[in-house]
Amino acid sequence: MNAIYFVAAGSLLGLIFALCMFLRVKKQPEGTAEMIKISTAVRKGANAYLKRQYTGVALFFGVVFCILIIMAFTGYLSFFTPFAFLTGGFFSGLSGFIGMHTATMANNRTAEGASKSLNKGLRVAFSAGSVMGFTVVGLGLLDLSIWYLILNAVFHNLPASEKIAEITSNMLTFGMGASSMALFARVGGGIFTKAADVGADLVGKIEAGIPEDDARNPAVIADNVGDNVGDVAGMGADLYESYVGSIVSTAALAVAAGYGISGVSVPMLLAAIGVVASIIGTFFVKTKEGASQKNLLRALRTGTYISAGIIVVASYFVIKILLPDHMGLYVAILSGLIAGVLIGAITEYFTSDSYKPTKKLADSSETGPATVIISGLSLGMLSTVVPVVIVGISVLVSYYATGGVNDFNIGLYGIGLSAVGMLSTLGITLATDAYGPIADNAGGIAEMTHMDASVRERTDALDALGNTTAATGKGFAIGSAALTALALIASYIDKIHQISPELKLDLTITNPKVLVGLFIGGMLPFLFAALTMSAVGKAAQSIVLEVRRQFKTIIGIMEGKAEPDYASCVDMCTKSAQKLMIAPALIAVIIPIVVGFIMGPEGVAGLLAGNTVTGFVLAVMMANSGGAWDNAKKFIEQGAHNGKGSDQHKAAVVGDTVGDPFKDTSGPSINILIKLTSMVSIVFASLIVASYLL
Amino acid sequence: MNAIYFVAAGSLLGLIFALCMFLRVKKQPEGTAEMIKISTAVRKGANAYLKRQYTGVALFFGVVFCILIIMAFTGYLSFFTPFAFLTGGFFSGLSGFIGMHTATMANNRTAEGASKSLNKGLRVAFSAGSVMGFTVVGLGLLDLSIWYLILNAVFHNLPASEKIAEITSNMLTFGMGASSMALFARVGGGIFTKAADVGADLVGKIEAGIPEDDARNPAVIADNVGDNVGDVAGMGADLYESYVGSIVSTAALAVAAGYGISGVSVPMLLAAIGVVASIIGTFFVKTKEGASQKNLLRALRTGTYISAGIIVVASYFVIKILLPDHMGLYVAILSGLIAGVLIGAITEYFTSDSYKPTKKLADSSETGPATVIISGLSLGMLSTVVPVVIVGISVLVSYYATGGVNDFNIGLYGIGLSAVGMLSTLGITLATDAYGPIADNAGGIAEMTHMDASVRERTDALDALGNTTAATGKGFAIGSAALTALALIASYIDKIHQISPELKLDLTITNPKVLVGLFIGGMLPFLFAALTMSAVGKAAQSIVLEVRRQFKTIIGIMEGKAEPDYASCVDMCTKSAQKLMIAPALIAVIIPIVVGFIMGPEGVAGLLAGNTVTGFVLAVMMANSGGAWDNAKKFIEQGAHNGKGSDQHKAAVVGDTVGDPFKDTSGPSINILIKLTSMVSIVFASLIVASYLL
Repeated sequence: MNAIYFVAAGSLLGLIFALCMFLRVKKQPEGTAEMIKISTAVRKGANAYLKRQYTGVALFFGVVFCILIIMAFTGYLSFFTPFAFLTGGFFSGLSGFIGMHTATMANNRTAEGASKSLNKGLRVAFSAGSVMGFTVVGLGLLDLSIWYLILNAVFHNLPASEKIAEITSNMLTFGMGASSMALFARVGGGIFTKAADVGADLVGKIEAGIPEDDARNPAVIADNVGDNVGDVAGMGADLYESYVGSIVSTAALAVAAGYGISGVSVPMLLAAIGVVASIIGTFFVKTKEGASQKNLLRALRTGTYISAGIIVVASYFVIKILLPDHMGLYVAILSGLIAGVLIGAITEYFTSDSYKPTKKLADSSETGPATVIISGLSLGMLSTVVPVVIVGISVLVSYYATGGVNDFNIGLYGIGLSAVGMLSTLGITLATDAYGPIADNAGGIAEMTHMDASVRERTDALDALGNTTAATGKGFAIGSAALTALALIASYIDKIHQISPELKLDLTITNPKVLVGLFIGGMLPFLFAALTMSAVGKAAQSIVLEVRRQFKTIIGIMEGKAEPDYASCVDMCTKSAQKLMIAPALIAVIIPIVVGFIMGPEGVAGLLAGNTVTGFVLAVMMANSGGAWDNAKKFIEQGAHNGKGSDQHKAAVVGDTVGDPFKDTSGPSINILIKLTSMVSIVFASLIVASYLL
Repeated sequence: MNAIYFVAAGSLLGLIFALCMFLRVKKQPEGTAEMIKISTAVRKGANAYLKRQYTGVALFFGVVFCILIIMAFTGYLSFFTPFAFLTGGFFSGLSGFIGMHTATMANNRTAEGASKSLNKGLRVAFSAGSVMGFTVVGLGLLDLSIWYLILNAVFHNLPASEKIAEITSNMLTFGMGASSMALFARVGGGIFTKAADVGADLVGKIEAGIPEDDARNPAVIADNVGDNVGDVAGMGADLYESYVGSIVSTAALAVAAGYGISGVSVPMLLAAIGVVASIIGTFFVKTKEGASQKNLLRALRTGTYISAGIIVVASYFVIKILLPDHMGLYVAILSGLIAGVLIGAITEYFTSDSYKPTKKLADSSETGPATVIISGLSLGMLSTVVPVVIVGISVLVSYYATGGVNDFNIGLYGIGLSAVGMLSTLGITLATDAYGPIADNAGGIAEMTHMDASVRERTDALDALGNTTAATGKGFAIGSAALTALALIASYIDKIHQISPELKLDLTITNPKVLVGLFIGGMLPFLFAALTMSAVGKAAQSIVLEVRRQFKTIIGIMEGKAEPDYASCVDMCTKSAQKLMIAPALIAVIIPIVVGFIMGPEGVAGLLAGNTVTGFVLAVMMANSGGAWDNAKKFIEQGAHNGKGSDQHKAAVVGDTVGDPFKDTSGPSINILIKLTSMVSIVFASLIVASYLL
């Protein structure tokens, strides 16, 4: 019981720290009137988008809430689940809103800071990123603590072991709210951001020949809004889901493993300590003027590594005190932590132009766009090997070190702990991720307001670094999603056993239901990617037409005498994103239920496994192909292969354009898909079992 | 025992029919001296390629043979396996050689025939395709009969039930020879054909602006050679493997299911009847002059459907006579047969320009190459949904109709039979597939020798049809590979039980070894695709440089006064293909063994399942994206979207170039990957079990 107070304390600490960072960002100078004007336009656009998104999401939540209430009345669900579904969605949405609001407030302040010094710019952007990081962590833990305390009070009459089983089993279903919100944030945001980006590039850069981030491009504000709704709010919701999901599933697995309250306390304490460790880490993120990109990167890395180091030490004592006879659990935590770092590093290797793969990709621009595409796809496919091996080793190590040979459930608890270990330093990891789009926006503002060359140099340095942290952040998001999904699958099967202990499931891979489930699950990420990619295509198409229309009808726009109608582009992106995200969202929710009704829990288990495996591989591939194309283009823009405007550059732009929906829409959306399908399966488990037993 | 005589008779019948067709093709007029010259150059190039390939393959076979002999001496393998490995490889290679020799002999004769009438052209091309189809079927059954008779003689002292178990268990390992040969044929041929094609296009069409198949292009002969080594020999080896693999694995599953000799006879009889049915079908392939493309397609389809109809009737009696109490097996056979037809139809829907998907893909050329790529990828991804559902339904139907609920092994036998059912009409199906590249070559010869416009029209009609049959053929090859792979996985697990009956495998998907195996298996097709795609890129690069060199150094080449050095391009493609196919080949062979040593049979089972699932989905996607890009380009060339030479056409050419390695190298190679990994696992099973029990 003490652990939950630590969690509550960690939650408050995280939120207070986020507030301090917010106030610190807010009091920074805002720059010139022009900068304020652009920043305000971006913020307004982002708010308009969020408002509309939340309206649509509210409808979805309303419908699902009614279904869950009916299930609760008919005895298929606890009465807490429908309400926890709402709070999960609410807190996830709230953290997205706060993070995005801060980010849009910080972009001009970062540009202004960069006009003073590089360190100043870095500090502002990173502080704003920290608001996002610590809000996600703080609100996630707040949601957990509130429900834990409520459930603890409700079940206070039960004996301790039954009570903790009730609490964790109930809390397990709570992730669905966060998952659903994450889906809309990631998919909707992803469609918005890339429709704006692709649309702006296709007409502005390619047809009209004006530079990126040029104020004459009517889609430029939408493009900047997109960075915030996609990369900030979407990423935050994604990791909020992984964070909460890994903790509740590991807690449930602790009970199945027979570790009771001590086992449940471990993931919670780890999360609480992670908040403190992350806060300490943030103080080490600073740099000197004239720092190279390597030094800047080192500054961010130092903070992350120090936080991880604190976890390494602290988690040893957590296990030593709570479960001293099971030090293998410590190995499981470490394996997750190390896997997270390694996946980030390998992602950087494949997507940064400092290394061979992206340089060779840039070389392929010599023979035109087709070879750029072929090379980029094969780079992304090749880059899946090491992450798969890392996750594989992490799973095996955490299972066997924990004692999975003797008890299957103990091993699964170990896998859950490795996911928690990976995510324990989320506060600072997410701060580093969210830093990227903020720096990117700051660079855009510097470009649009024609700031001094030296300022541009600094914002460019910050922005380039942001690309790297964004890529490693994506690797981390995918890796943690895979481990979380595995923990959720284990919890799902455990849940089925709880619901119907006499039901003997045949989960062998030669059971045709499992096999067909695997096939359908393996196909789902492809279907999901197809739908999200074609959504970007459709939405971008409408932006292309709108930008062309404005260039034609608004006289003086190209001479900078008349102002383009930015708002209409933002509005079109918003509408398209809202409309086009419905189909993929419904698929993620409905298919596991339909498969469950047709093929029972065995088919669902196969589906979840196939979905996680293929989803992981496809998501890594798409993220890394996209990242490498982006950086290969930037590499050429810096002068390689005849530089900007050359045929090679044009070929690289084709790659980058293809990569946009890869890395920022479809790839990251798959993270949500693999977790949401598990969550939906868990919530609807009783119904599926009931229909199966009929 | 009677069944094997039917098989032997079927084999001889198939071979005699192939010989008749061969002689019929041979006696057709060869056309002008110029046509003969080109055809001879193509045949020489193809023979040179095959000679070199077989030399390299001989080395591989020598090494593996030695390993297998050592395993036999140390008791891990029967002494028959190493020799059967050689005969499997030999017969597969032989059928590739015969098919290709006929194809290269038929191209000028087809062109000449088309100069007389459309029907004449169709008959020549289809007859030549039939040689391939019936050689594959005939030699496959010959290999089976010979070994069956040998094993039957060797084990004649055993009681009937033990004897049949020994025979089938031994024959199961025989597929590895055919699999290995198929790998080299598909991967090597795939690299060759696309390196030549991409290389020829990049310099000839795009840089020098000369039309496709222009005799001035030094890579034009290599391009035509490639069609033969990749699409004829490669496709033949692929389906030879599926054909033999599905029969031997189903025979082994029959014993496990307790059906004994009757159960073993069913797949064998089906195959034998299939030969007769296919021969009858070929007589219905004819058309009238002035037939539309639809009529031509109907001519080919009529033949296939009549053959399938015969199987529908005959297989009913086969089951009725051999296993009258198990009529569910008949349903299993039908489900496979129907699945094959449906997968072909859905492939046609997604890749033919008569339907919406490819038309919409052509529309996307309006906004440039990037949107062509995005749309094509998402089309391919979307196209995986229906095939997955079809295979899923076929698996469930054949399992449950057969009686899988009562006995697991009986259900697996049903799945095996559905694969055999799908492949039973292979003779005519493969004839239809092999027809495609022959017609394509004929079109090339007509272009190069500047034949009359009316002849070109006819060869174009034949060629366009060839594209459709090639696409449906690919769908069929992938679908049958998936079902065969599933039968092989079941046989693998059965094999493990045979080797060590006391070994209790935990094949549940939550076993971390199975899970990690799934991850590694799911990643393998991506790795394989990455390697084969970058191999094409590298090989094409060398052709680009060579063609550029010839354009520069051979004076008068562009005016048609000097002849380019065709042989050097053929030679370079050959060398590159041989070198670059080594890495993917080794991966397919070594990874299942390594995983076996590290994670035991459970890890291997996971790997095979993951590999089959992801491989199937990825192969379908790559084949269909590639097919659709190709046809979208052709659609534009016929005048849509401003036609040839427009920006839209250029954008579509980028898609087509990306699609080349997709549909002709990586996609089809994955078929082999999923079967070969299973075969390797089966052959090395004893060793893996021994190391596991240590």
